[in-house]
Amino acid sequence: MKNRRFALGFDFGTNSVRALVVDIATGEEIGTSVYNYKAGVDGVIVDPVDPNVARQDPQDYLDGLEASGRGAIAKAKANCKEFSPDRIIGIGVDTTGSTPMPVDTNGVPLGLDPGFADNPNAMAWLWKDHTSYEEAGAITAKAAKIRPHFLAKCGGAYSSEWFWSKIWHCLKVDPDVFDAAYTWVELGDVIPGFLTGTLAPDKLKRGVCAAGHKAMFNADWSGYPDKEFLVVLEPRLGRIRESLPNVAHTAGERAGLLTEEWAQRLGLKPGIAVSVGAFDAHMGAVGAGVKEGTLVKIIGTSTCDVAVASRETGLPDVPGVCGIVDGSVLPGYIGLEAGQSAVGDIFNWFVRNCVPASYKEEATQKGIDIHQLLTEKADKQKPGESGLLALDWNNGNRTILVDVRLSGLMLGQTLQTRPEEMYRALIEGTAYGARVIIDRLDEYGVHIEEVVNCGGIAEKNAMLMQIYADVTNRTMKISRSAQTPALGAAMFAAVAAGPENGGYANVEAAQAAMGGLKERQFEPIPANVKTYEKLFGMYKQLHDIFGTKDYSANLYHIMKDLLDLRDAVREGKEV
Amino acid sequence: MKNRRFALGFDFGTNSVRALVVDIATGEEIGTSVYNYKAGVDGVIVDPVDPNVARQDPQDYLDGLEASGRGAIAKAKANCKEFSPDRIIGIGVDTTGSTPMPVDTNGVPLGLDPGFADNPNAMAWLWKDHTSYEEAGAITAKAAKIRPHFLAKCGGAYSSEWFWSKIWHCLKVDPDVFDAAYTWVELGDVIPGFLTGTLAPDKLKRGVCAAGHKAMFNADWSGYPDKEFLVVLEPRLGRIRESLPNVAHTAGERAGLLTEEWAQRLGLKPGIAVSVGAFDAHMGAVGAGVKEGTLVKIIGTSTCDVAVASRETGLPDVPGVCGIVDGSVLPGYIGLEAGQSAVGDIFNWFVRNCVPASYKEEATQKGIDIHQLLTEKADKQKPGESGLLALDWNNGNRTILVDVRLSGLMLGQTLQTRPEEMYRALIEGTAYGARVIIDRLDEYGVHIEEVVNCGGIAEKNAMLMQIYADVTNRTMKISRSAQTPALGAAMFAAVAAGPENGGYANVEAAQAAMGGLKERQFEPIPANVKTYEKLFGMYKQLHDIFGTKDYSANLYHIMKDLLDLRDAVREGKEV
Repeated sequence: MKNRRFALGFDFGTNSVRALVVDIATGEEIGTSVYNYKAGVDGVIVDPVDPNVARQDPQDYLDGLEASGRGAIAKAKANCKEFSPDRIIGIGVDTTGSTPMPVDTNGVPLGLDPGFADNPNAMAWLWKDHTSYEEAGAITAKAAKIRPHFLAKCGGAYSSEWFWSKIWHCLKVDPDVFDAAYTWVELGDVIPGFLTGTLAPDKLKRGVCAAGHKAMFNADWSGYPDKEFLVVLEPRLGRIRESLPNVAHTAGERAGLLTEEWAQRLGLKPGIAVSVGAFDAHMGAVGAGVKEGTLVKIIGTSTCDVAVASRETGLPDVPGVCGIVDGSVLPGYIGLEAGQSAVGDIFNWFVRNCVPASYKEEATQKGIDIHQLLTEKADKQKPGESGLLALDWNNGNRTILVDVRLSGLMLGQTLQTRPEEMYRALIEGTAYGARVIIDRLDEYGVHIEEVVNCGGIAEKNAMLMQIYADVTNRTMKISRSAQTPALGAAMFAAVAAGPENGGYANVEAAQAAMGGLKERQFEPIPANVKTYEKLFGMYKQLHDIFGTKDYSANLYHIMKDLLDLRDAVREGKEV
Repeated sequence: MKNRRFALGFDFGTNSVRALVVDIATGEEIGTSVYNYKAGVDGVIVDPVDPNVARQDPQDYLDGLEASGRGAIAKAKANCKEFSPDRIIGIGVDTTGSTPMPVDTNGVPLGLDPGFADNPNAMAWLWKDHTSYEEAGAITAKAAKIRPHFLAKCGGAYSSEWFWSKIWHCLKVDPDVFDAAYTWVELGDVIPGFLTGTLAPDKLKRGVCAAGHKAMFNADWSGYPDKEFLVVLEPRLGRIRESLPNVAHTAGERAGLLTEEWAQRLGLKPGIAVSVGAFDAHMGAVGAGVKEGTLVKIIGTSTCDVAVASRETGLPDVPGVCGIVDGSVLPGYIGLEAGQSAVGDIFNWFVRNCVPASYKEEATQKGIDIHQLLTEKADKQKPGESGLLALDWNNGNRTILVDVRLSGLMLGQTLQTRPEEMYRALIEGTAYGARVIIDRLDEYGVHIEEVVNCGGIAEKNAMLMQIYADVTNRTMKISRSAQTPALGAAMFAAVAAGPENGGYANVEAAQAAMGGLKERQFEPIPANVKTYEKLFGMYKQLHDIFGTKDYSANLYHIMKDLLDLRDAVREGKEV
């Protein structure tokens, strides 16, 4: 093939950044490289006293941008004779979020200022920082009274993970940082700003994805929340509102063109298009082929669930769904974002803290890791056989309860309960959590017919995929690419470049050319669906009584039902 | 000292039998020996399919009786020059229970009959066999309608662990065994029957402890339940009722005199007194010094809690307290028995199944066991700091819910939760369970001022004792003897021998001479009492909503309260 053209996607994750070089005609991934952040614990600056703290050093982002970009290009050169860096026609960027950071009048992060060295409050406030839960509660309470339409678009509750909660909390705990910040910018806007020299607040194109999903931006009310509302919360927030524009941009639009400086640092041609940024999950959903009727689940430490609805359906507000933003996923569609606060994180926590030495030895002997060993053992169990039921709230509940002040629960333990039973119960707990989200979307007219899953867990753990199919009674498919966020970023890079540079006119065209699914997919097994329907009923009851104020439910029979079910399953009886 | 006299106590436990030679003037324990049962898993015959099955081979009892008795006597000879076997003036026996077994017309256990070799249904049905939960439910339901006074003495519910449930279940699942059995006898009656040659049903003195606590025997209604009641349950149970006497006996009475055969097998004088048997916990309570106002907790794999009330107090029925039987503990007092279905068993389950390899390595390096390591780590935590709360129902709930169809629950887990936090939460769960029992007794006029604890856990784990003191707001004392059941059995041996043989006229005199406490005791720490008062409130709410039909309680705030409490404690704030 002659005249092959390529796009470069960057995926800024929680612990590392990945760069990916993709053939825009086929989606072939010809070079990738990962840079692990250096600061803190796996790139996350934590606090030994307060488990809610999670910050990142902006220097890690810049170092990672250069190193992963150069690394991926070097790999592409090695892997593909037809590749050369000047065939890269555009750059796309996705990031975690809401991960805002305070910046100076030039838009430069305060975390890079030696005057604020080692001050976590001047750094990026990572999505999973939960220090501002009180502020989130106050924003929710006030908005419920005087701006209910703000809440309606973000699931009925404003989260401690989000933009305004974090700024307000910084103002309270570190007024010096707050005063030094001209404004606050999301990570997904900062990176394109650096690459294109548009960091200055009057030049910066902020993405609608972060703005709409996390900062209550909506074109219906002229952008970000009105100053009057913010001032009622805290007068000094008014100044931050004044620093923000009244427009926000969809990914695929150009943030600008690559500067000489960054072209040199990356080894690329200057002047190529850089797309407006968006969240990893959103670009990942695009990379996985999101469309009407298809939910994309990006399963990692947490999950992000992304769907789209046509503007014409007259979509109502969906309570508990974190974000409903026009154009946040695909231009021309309403983007919906939901998610589970912990999935892989729960399994990793379990493996680190709750699995005995004998299992470690057995895994070592078999030459597999503990996750694989537990999965092998758990795969021999039938649904309902363990008598266990778990809530998946070890890191709170993002959708549909939007409540970080929740925690885990497991019940049904006996003196015979085995580690693999608990492991499976935790997997099932996350499946029930996934089902709650699908049911909620369905209830409000966003019908999900199939689920496309992305991420290492979905690729590696067939048992988990089968459980998800059985619990949700829907086909589970898996994205062909193992790097859908970076692939999605590359799709947006091709769209930002545009047909005039050998790219695409719209995202659908990029998806059609660059996307795809794995052959193996998972169909629901009717007998399992039936058992899980019962277990899900119990989960939902616990979910509602522990997670909502509706406590009229009768819990009395739950343990007995679980034991009856366990015994029936063991005896091969009809359940 | 000249003319020292000794008593021999036997304690038939779940996995082994212990013999103990005691100086009746001082309580000095001069020789002891343990025989581990050989059959099944640690002496318990289990079923790979049905976790409810727990049986024992009667041959183990006889082998253990001889071996442990000879062993203790040999040790006594080695340890004490003034000892000789002919200075043993009596034998006492305590056992687990309800552990009934089918016997033939001569009173010989069917489990010893080669015709029933390897048939678990012909063996002893160990206390923790839960196969007959359906029969227990049916007995409770029927008695509630037509004999409510039967239930009032056994806590409002008849248990699957008890005599009639087990006989009825045997009738259903193995009619051959049922038909071959002339009657059923408790282990605590079988052993004195063998020792004194009184196995024959017309000679056997059945103990009131087992009869009253487990078989609905009461002098107020002429002994065991009337035949009419049993026949309504199942016509063939009427035949078993006809095989039973209308009287039962308190420990301290003589079951008979030691036969030539058993005198030879044990190396003792024939003709010495053998006391009527009683349950391990009851004799253990006597060995620990039970009296009015003192609750004795025997903490092992499960706990047994024993108290006495003066006959004159006009003690009402106490709902959920498993047994209220005149003379079952101390002659002349109402004996009350309560208990927790699993305590040490929960900690052992946790250590075997839920503690990671790194902890095992650390324990090995420090030369301590995992329980000790977890305790060291957990001891550094403050009450409430983990945000965890556990129900202690991994083996059901004996008191006050009398319900085996319950299971464990832990809530409050986060991604930061550590094994020692879960371990401590389980210990706290058992402390709350202990508190529920004390509160219930108190509510019905049995006021507990101090608690005397027995068993290895109480002796070894100071943290646990302090938590129990803080949760119950009562002084925790520890019995001086590590073998209170066998010591109690020796006290009853001395009473059965009587003053005419150098023994005692009553149990109080034996307790005064032979009993005692350790110096170290645990006083409640007011700040901890306050925190645990809050945690106990939450436990009680979970307890009631998961364990009773009263589900009007509001659970919504529990997790939030736990997290607030955790944060407050970590920050050193007032809780």
